[in-house]
Amino acid sequence: MKPATAHKRIEGVLSPVVTPFQRDLSPDAGRFVKHCRWLLRSGCAGLAVFGTNSEANSMSVEEKLELLEALVKGGVPAATLMPGTGHCALTDSVRMTREAVRKGCGGVLMLPPFYYKGVSDEGLFRNFSEVIERVGDERLRLYLYHIPPVSQVGISLGLIERLLKRYPGIVAGAKDSSGDWANTKAMLDNFKEAGFDVFPGSEVFLLDGLRAGGKGCITATGNVNPGPISEVFRNWRGANADKLQAGINVTRKIMQKVPMIPALKAVTAHFANDPAWKTVRPPLTELDPAQEAQVLAELKASGFSMSGL
Amino acid sequence: MKPATAHKRIEGVLSPVVTPFQRDLSPDAGRFVKHCRWLLRSGCAGLAVFGTNSEANSMSVEEKLELLEALVKGGVPAATLMPGTGHCALTDSVRMTREAVRKGCGGVLMLPPFYYKGVSDEGLFRNFSEVIERVGDERLRLYLYHIPPVSQVGISLGLIERLLKRYPGIVAGAKDSSGDWANTKAMLDNFKEAGFDVFPGSEVFLLDGLRAGGKGCITATGNVNPGPISEVFRNWRGANADKLQAGINVTRKIMQKVPMIPALKAVTAHFANDPAWKTVRPPLTELDPAQEAQVLAELKASGFSMSGL
Repeated sequence: MKPATAHKRIEGVLSPVVTPFQRDLSPDAGRFVKHCRWLLRSGCAGLAVFGTNSEANSMSVEEKLELLEALVKGGVPAATLMPGTGHCALTDSVRMTREAVRKGCGGVLMLPPFYYKGVSDEGLFRNFSEVIERVGDERLRLYLYHIPPVSQVGISLGLIERLLKRYPGIVAGAKDSSGDWANTKAMLDNFKEAGFDVFPGSEVFLLDGLRAGGKGCITATGNVNPGPISEVFRNWRGANADKLQAGINVTRKIMQKVPMIPALKAVTAHFANDPAWKTVRPPLTELDPAQEAQVLAELKASGFSMSGL
Repeated sequence: MKPATAHKRIEGVLSPVVTPFQRDLSPDAGRFVKHCRWLLRSGCAGLAVFGTNSEANSMSVEEKLELLEALVKGGVPAATLMPGTGHCALTDSVRMTREAVRKGCGGVLMLPPFYYKGVSDEGLFRNFSEVIERVGDERLRLYLYHIPPVSQVGISLGLIERLLKRYPGIVAGAKDSSGDWANTKAMLDNFKEAGFDVFPGSEVFLLDGLRAGGKGCITATGNVNPGPISEVFRNWRGANADKLQAGINVTRKIMQKVPMIPALKAVTAHFANDPAWKTVRPPLTELDPAQEAQVLAELKASGFSMSGL
């Protein structure tokens, strides 16, 4: 393997960046780079591009590699990037992970292969192990992506233990989108001392996570509310931390009343005054007009804004 | 769209062909072509390559296109092929479907995009519609792949109705791997008159399906037991049809006691005297020795063989 270059790991609030599409459903690199730069200006420590909220699995590997290239050329520091590189196909995961490491990305966020259900931890271990061995680069920082409500295939504590033991330093942490605080807590209690960085998949658990040894969060709502969420991270030891947390919970609750991905896009479209942002790829659909009106009205009533967009 | 050339649709028993891998996990085109030719010699009317049993989602689009090319070059008639071309990514589905039509494949078997769960029929309609429109070729024969136990995203009767109405002739049928006879029967009752060809996803429903207007079956076990299963199809109106059906049910039951895909490969490896056939890609794992011994012993005791392999 290529030797490691010591670099600081990503800590703080990461946005799983929504992907803008043109009217013909092709990825819109221009809007994407612009949005990523706004997120970093607005307080995000990192960008988990190509995640669930990015409709990443609705894009081909080629489309994602082109967007990654556009980001780096567009001045987004690679060290802030934690692209999703896990696919059903082993060879796709290897290709995408290798390219992310080559570009100097701060890490990669890897889904397990998610087509076959009820697979064994041995099979999942082999998947991650094959990717790590084939990429063969000590600079790889691999974050495991646990999102059983969507992938239906999860990352067990036993699997983490085995991977951490075999690949210390490379297996760097996890995003826990189980929505189950007990699981996040168990990841932290078992592995944080081994250098395993845990990011809850919702800002609802940001403060609790930080107090239990977590490193931030990777949250959908980070796409539209990066400033206030980052404020919680920056002030989590302060006297007003709980108050700040309560504030971001309000926004989260409003967003969660409607389908999240089209809601993020509708809100961005509104505040950027750019209706093209609403476009989603099948199998997703845009919010219907009533849902869109509701979420915008409730956000405005709460004092929400997307300044500097 | 390019004009249609009238060709007879595939009817009978199709095998969702298992994909052999080399020790380094790369697809083994030589063994693949050989196995496909054996299946056709042994009674299969068609080959549903790149299905669930093929570990198709564990391969990249490029790997599948290379195998498809090898098949056609290897003398497998394209008209017998019904490759799986449905992916999570719209652009992957378009690319693979377009290539299948160009090669003259008898049809394509399309999974819905399966990452996002709980998606609407509208979103799924848009997915299939985009693929059909972008491929833009009247020669396309699209079979919908309903396998909710694995994909978790299904093909509803309402979706079929809408697609059939919009794309008559192109939307050609379905493989129903729900394992729910009531659903297969409902597909038949509602759509067989509209030229919608229904293939149950297991030979257990072969005779019942044919009697209700089905066109055959597409079944995992077709990989190892193509002769006797095809016998049921050829003799389904005969006096001994039920007896033939009971015979193939015995083999199915033995196979179902252990994980199907590695079992198909272990059985092929044994009867071909070619241990390399056992190789699976992560996240799947081979049968353990006890499972392998059990399935082989029970098959032999039942009089099972794979002649001419």
